[in-house]
Amino acid sequence: MQNDLAKLFKNLSVGVYVIAVTDGNRANAFTAAWVMQISFKPPMLAISINPKNYSYQLLQIGKVCSVNVLGQHQYELAEHFGRSGLTDKMSGFKWQKDMTGAPILSECLAYFDCRVTDFIDAGDHKLAICEVLTASQLNSGKPLLYQQTGQLDNSEQLYKK
Amino acid sequence: MQNDLAKLFKNLSVGVYVIAVTDGNRANAFTAAWVMQISFKPPMLAISINPKNYSYQLLQIGKVCSVNVLGQHQYELAEHFGRSGLTDKMSGFKWQKDMTGAPILSECLAYFDCRVTDFIDAGDHKLAICEVLTASQLNSGKPLLYQQTGQLDNSEQLYKK
Repeated sequence: MQNDLAKLFKNLSVGVYVIAVTDGNRANAFTAAWVMQISFKPPMLAISINPKNYSYQLLQIGKVCSVNVLGQHQYELAEHFGRSGLTDKMSGFKWQKDMTGAPILSECLAYFDCRVTDFIDAGDHKLAICEVLTASQLNSGKPLLYQQTGQLDNSEQLYKK
Repeated sequence: MQNDLAKLFKNLSVGVYVIAVTDGNRANAFTAAWVMQISFKPPMLAISINPKNYSYQLLQIGKVCSVNVLGQHQYELAEHFGRSGLTDKMSGFKWQKDMTGAPILSECLAYFDCRVTDFIDAGDHKLAICEVLTASQLNSGKPLLYQQTGQLDNSEQLYKK
């Protein structure tokens, strides 16, 4: 099964998002696909995050984030925020704020401004359980699907031992 | 925000699945959209479930389920398994089994045979944390997107007080 897993998991439909975090002083943003709604009342999201990422440290301290939906015309943004090791990843983009103070990418289709209520162990990832405090549509367009991005994160390598 | 939430959440891309459960004796199946991968190693999924559903009782006892991916031609299956109160929802379909013994819908695109490792509170839902024991592609086709189904679950009503 191991060899086919990356292909099999592409049957699960997910979008592409920029998650932006802050600990009050520092901020960062990264590309993620593992985001979904988990409750209507209160409105809640789950985000599965690689705990080795710098952003995860900030998220643990600040416990706030924005989920910014990328459109089909924004593949380059997904690539940009998917890179690690960049020193000033966020510069050159317009950011705004809402209730939590987490940076919001002004050119996204829609954003969800979230407070993290819990972190759950999930294999090689951590699941951030989030309450959505505010949300808004900023631009019109069709959401980018992860399936449309090909091998954005080189995930085929990630199932190997 | 409350009035717009159903519309805003449609920016989050999700698929459409039939989740089948068994407690060893009884079995049931229901339509779900809130399914995503949460770990590469081990391969894991999260499923957000309405705890008022009969299937949730079976899942709590049996702790196994199959996630069956529906294709774009299978909207009627999504509607059928989305109905509640049917006495024999599963009859008339071909089912097979793999490792866990949970029923697998033979006409699905692909299935993930799962063992539930944990249940997490998530507002008005429960999050089932699942390890994928086996998975397989059964049929070819493009996955159905929840966004393509319109108001399949009448979700606009579910945000209201």
